[in-house]
Amino acid sequence: MAEPGFTALAEARVAVVGLGLMGGSLALALRGRCREIVGVDPDPAAADFARARGVIDRAVDFDSARGCDVLILAAPVRVILAQLRALSISPPAERRRATVVLDLGSTKTEIAALMQALPPHFDPIGGHPMCGREVSGIEHAQAGLYRGKIFVLTPLARTSPAALALANRLVAAIGARPFVLTPERHDALAALSSHLPYAAAVALVRAALSSQDDGLWTMAASGFRDTSRLAASDVTMMVDILLTNRPALLDALGRYRMELDALAALIDAGEPEALRTLLAPAQARRAGLFQ
Amino acid sequence: MAEPGFTALAEARVAVVGLGLMGGSLALALRGRCREIVGVDPDPAAADFARARGVIDRAVDFDSARGCDVLILAAPVRVILAQLRALSISPPAERRRATVVLDLGSTKTEIAALMQALPPHFDPIGGHPMCGREVSGIEHAQAGLYRGKIFVLTPLARTSPAALALANRLVAAIGARPFVLTPERHDALAALSSHLPYAAAVALVRAALSSQDDGLWTMAASGFRDTSRLAASDVTMMVDILLTNRPALLDALGRYRMELDALAALIDAGEPEALRTLLAPAQARRAGLFQ
Repeated sequence: MAEPGFTALAEARVAVVGLGLMGGSLALALRGRCREIVGVDPDPAAADFARARGVIDRAVDFDSARGCDVLILAAPVRVILAQLRALSISPPAERRRATVVLDLGSTKTEIAALMQALPPHFDPIGGHPMCGREVSGIEHAQAGLYRGKIFVLTPLARTSPAALALANRLVAAIGARPFVLTPERHDALAALSSHLPYAAAVALVRAALSSQDDGLWTMAASGFRDTSRLAASDVTMMVDILLTNRPALLDALGRYRMELDALAALIDAGEPEALRTLLAPAQARRAGLFQ
Repeated sequence: MAEPGFTALAEARVAVVGLGLMGGSLALALRGRCREIVGVDPDPAAADFARARGVIDRAVDFDSARGCDVLILAAPVRVILAQLRALSISPPAERRRATVVLDLGSTKTEIAALMQALPPHFDPIGGHPMCGREVSGIEHAQAGLYRGKIFVLTPLARTSPAALALANRLVAAIGARPFVLTPERHDALAALSSHLPYAAAVALVRAALSSQDDGLWTMAASGFRDTSRLAASDVTMMVDILLTNRPALLDALGRYRMELDALAALIDAGEPEALRTLLAPAQARRAGLFQ
């Protein structure tokens, strides 16, 4: 392995690959906190927008980006997987220190497996900021997106203390709170806390669409609005998440369908006391959250 | 039938039975728009609070309330059903005009059946304002709760034009928008737009509780927060709703589970294009709502 990566964020040249909502917001939040921020996006319009609005200093290509001090991969998960495969066969850049590679992907196990196999001129660590929105694109980027939010870090066996320290400084610099997990634990928790809610929202909108009575959209109030909100999430991003977290998500969906079946059975049986016993713990837990 | 009920809201003595979030907010919104507002609640503390804060002019008992010009039933659905049974065997009050009976219950078919059987000194009409919150109780009442919200009215075959006109004036007076439906159509739409989202939220919180990993509550961000919000709804109110809308809700749950099964099968099969085809219509529909 080359010398481990930078720990001094202020001196680092940072490349953000993927100038969408997450990458654009990260670049904005890092403005003035590192030596230079360059950006990569396959869509020239996104790169031009980012440069014109001062989100990045320069637009570069992926080959130049991989020679930076810090390489942040902010694309949908399956694109990150392809980028890691490209990095794994890339020749060493002429650098003394390894390039710290941090990704923002929403699932971590498959990404961690490829990161583990990167050549020694990379010093990789996984990341996942818990602040998605149901809108996407650089035009929605905002410097405050990460402020106060949890930012999961999934260090690998090979991650150097220097790379972990740099990642922690980056998380602090954008106002987020680090939460260190193994990739596997992250994916199990994300399946229940994030991907299952998305599946629940999609199924709700599809069930509503199946009713054929347009009065439904007049009736739909804040309850439907909030429960279905995640169904508006970017489809490309979500397909990648669903396909790269299959075991954990199928387990979560199994638990969910068991809970629904139990609820339906009690409704069918018309059992008020048993229903109350099923509903009350969920009421108590949810009422105590997000206060 | 006695002469039909008042149409002049400003001259009416209005009784609100059930001084919780919905009844209390309705009384507040009607202040200054009718001759007198009296309140009934089995909890003396709620009635005292309502009188002390000027939500109602006087606290009375149910027997006095049924002699008012307008009787608004704002309790959980199964309590409303018991109240309608009590009214159905009550002697006529010494009144020239029938008392308009309006309820705020979240399901309408069972209520409509009992309303249809009320003696002729009552002039009943069903109602359901689409503005629940996940908090309950008179202390959360607010005059603006109904402003801009849909207020479903379900007139019966026996509802007089005068009672329908009064109900429409009441809806307008509190700033809501009337939406006239049959009780059966209301219940089918409410099952999909309101009761199914509640069931989905409860199952989500229970699936999360089953995971035994407390890291989940650290990870849970805005997606989990919004998708699970309805699980914090008042349990007594929700038990009554679930038990009085069983056929429509079981049908909605059946559609929902079919959608979940289809989604789980495509995730299991690892089919990105088929997944995209399933997710995209939900994304497009939801992104276009609540703008």
